[in-house]
Amino acid sequence: MSNEIMNFRTRKWVKPEDLNPNGTLFGGSLLRWIDEEAAVYVIDRLDNSQVVTKYMSEINFVSSARQGDVIELGISAIAMGRTSITLRCEVRNMISHKSILTIDQIVFVNVDSQGQPSAHGKKLATTAVETA
Amino acid sequence: MSNEIMNFRTRKWVKPEDLNPNGTLFGGSLLRWIDEEAAVYVIDRLDNSQVVTKYMSEINFVSSARQGDVIELGISAIAMGRTSITLRCEVRNMISHKSILTIDQIVFVNVDSQGQPSAHGKKLATTAVETA
Amino acid sequence: MSNEIMNFRTRKWVKPEDLNPNGTLFGGSLLRWIDEEAAVYVIDRLDNSQVVTKYMSEINFVSSARQGDVIELGISAIAMGRTSITLRCEVRNMISHKSILTIDQIVFVNVDSQGQPSAHGKKLATTAVETA
Amino acid sequence: MSNEIMNFRTRKWVKPEDLNPNGTLFGGSLLRWIDEEAAVYVIDRLDNSQVVTKYMSEINFVSSARQGDVIELGISAIAMGRTSITLRCEVRNMISHKSILTIDQIVFVNVDSQGQPSAHGKKLATTAVETA
Amino acid sequence: MSNEIMNFRTRKWVKPEDLNPNGTLFGGSLLRWIDEEAAVYVIDRLDNSQVVTKYMSEINFVSSARQGDVIELGISAIAMGRTSITLRCEVRNMISHKSILTIDQIVFVNVDSQGQPSAHGKKLATTAVETA
Amino acid sequence: MSNEIMNFRTRKWVKPEDLNPNGTLFGGSLLRWIDEEAAVYVIDRLDNSQVVTKYMSEINFVSSARQGDVIELGISAIAMGRTSITLRCEVRNMISHKSILTIDQIVFVNVDSQGQPSAHGKKLATTAVETA
Repeated sequence: MSNEIMNFRTRKWVKPEDLNPNGTLFGGSLLRWIDEEAAVYVIDRLDNSQVVTKYMSEINFVSSARQGDVIELGISAIAMGRTSITLRCEVRNMISHKSILTIDQIVFVNVDSQGQPSAHGKKLATTAVETA
Repeated sequence: MSNEIMNFRTRKWVKPEDLNPNGTLFGGSLLRWIDEEAAVYVIDRLDNSQVVTKYMSEINFVSSARQGDVIELGISAIAMGRTSITLRCEVRNMISHKSILTIDQIVFVNVDSQGQPSAHGKKLATTAVETA
Repeated sequence: MSNEIMNFRTRKWVKPEDLNPNGTLFGGSLLRWIDEEAAVYVIDRLDNSQVVTKYMSEINFVSSARQGDVIELGISAIAMGRTSITLRCEVRNMISHKSILTIDQIVFVNVDSQGQPSAHGKKLATTAVETA
Repeated sequence: MSNEIMNFRTRKWVKPEDLNPNGTLFGGSLLRWIDEEAAVYVIDRLDNSQVVTKYMSEINFVSSARQGDVIELGISAIAMGRTSITLRCEVRNMISHKSILTIDQIVFVNVDSQGQPSAHGKKLATTAVETA
Repeated sequence: MSNEIMNFRTRKWVKPEDLNPNGTLFGGSLLRWIDEEAAVYVIDRLDNSQVVTKYMSEINFVSSARQGDVIELGISAIAMGRTSITLRCEVRNMISHKSILTIDQIVFVNVDSQGQPSAHGKKLATTAVETA
Repeated sequence: MSNEIMNFRTRKWVKPEDLNPNGTLFGGSLLRWIDEEAAVYVIDRLDNSQVVTKYMSEINFVSSARQGDVIELGISAIAMGRTSITLRCEVRNMISHKSILTIDQIVFVNVDSQGQPSAHGKKLATTAVETA
């Protein structure tokens, strides 16, 4: 298992629609953003948009965010299986870089048009250079 | 640790707005629904609406759902700490009862008006009877 | 006409996105939740997801809800036609059980794949036991 | 009771996010739009944005709409009370003018800053000229 | 180029979900409303719902709106091409009529079922009478 | 005027909820994403979250996107005023790098707590190194 550099890309501005009734960022909104960002990362790495979330390891909500904060979502690939890819995710405050949560493993599976697992033919090494 | 009976309560009808681009239920939408349902359960059990999500154990996405499916979210309390409560969650198809995902532990913390952990004074035994 | 026991199932946590500009629960959001909950109830009772809303009787908005409140939606079947089903709906505050609104009749029609009314073959008696 | 001319103003383009799983306009979305349009009409007529929905008479869903249809919402004032205003609402297809639903009475109450009913001082006659 | 009378039709009530973190109307929400209203106008004028946005001229955000404000969107046709239509747009506060923004030109193109530009056969003169 | 390198950061997966009724990316959704991304960029560059959109230059919609496409939003700073900052924006398909639209100037103004323009004290030169 080899950990690539984490790229912090997608950024979100915490708006009233993202808050829970206590006035802090709703955890469910954050999980929704993470799942989308992870899918986007996988589509980019596997050159295939037919991918499904299979597993997330445990999630620690270290700190929260408030209205007006900007947060950024970081993803790195940590392992490649034959049909799967495993990511690591960190969410942090864009200004203070204070961690909001970390998920050590998010596993996606590459599927074919029938939804069955399908070899993706990628390795960590061949995909290590970011193109953006 | 004592496992109470799981109550399947809140139900969702999978609409176009809930789909990922592959036409199945978007994992992020599902996680958003779970976090809200878990918060509602905790508010009911602790008689306090100042609660925050602290931890989720690993999540296995066993099967998915499609447009028009109805799913239901089940929660049970499995442990009480001094300031925390631990839940178990299962999501299943309402018609077939086929499991969609299970989360063995979701931990919420009871907080005071300053957001600090605060004793909730509840036990599993004293809250075991559902009132609905 | 025979009134079955009302089941309060789906629960909603009133979040900033659900408020009208006066800071109370937006009536339109509430009506959206009711229509979805009623549809889900009908799909469950008729074993068919091809159902359409045909009629709602008058609606009295008895009280409102505020940010952070949890409300629950109750539905019971009160009559079965050949192709239709009639429901009664009540929405109340989950904690105080104070009524928010009541709708005496919501009529859904069972339709076939062409959208035409179609016999559902169900009776109140044969569907009176809740399975959840 | 005197019925003013119905003004069809706000128009909506039915998008995927507005559909129910059967692919027609979700009744709950439509009710949400109506409640907002009615509130806007009342704010305009009473020169006060502190208004609350109190009552809707029965609703007949005459026909539906499909993705890509444009619908328009029509409102007219039919009665003024001391603190209330009663509206009539019709929703129709913008192109065909085919009726989608009609609500004979929607009652709003003018409230003060404490949320208590408050005289609005308006009459049907003095507000009959549309200014748009 | 001939400027028709501007019709202020669709009205929006600024709700918490429409605000940016500074508590004023989020510019992006406003642009979303304008694009929808312009499309609806074009569908009405060209009798075709297959239309695409091609161009917007510069946008000056003159003033903003706050929670509870009602705004209205005005559109007029200013030019017709063979396959295109050019609109002018103004957004203003419904009560004060204070301008919020103006866009001098929004161009839509009429397309066929393959998405290719297609003659619409309409002129400014033949469509100058509003039918609502 | 000095053009810094464009950073493509935030990425979006086009989902059913983002489509217009023709099945392509709704222009209004795209404008909403751009306004948010631009605001986030400005907050980062000016170290102040009190910023307002003042102006956008003309927008050419060069191509569209379809369900399942991933798009990415690129922003660079091109000029600094005393209280303002001017950005350039490009949106492209993440996989093909085909341009979707370009906006040559988006102007934000730095405001104080009363909403009045306020000097930001930044220059292009002092902020040219990206920190992510």
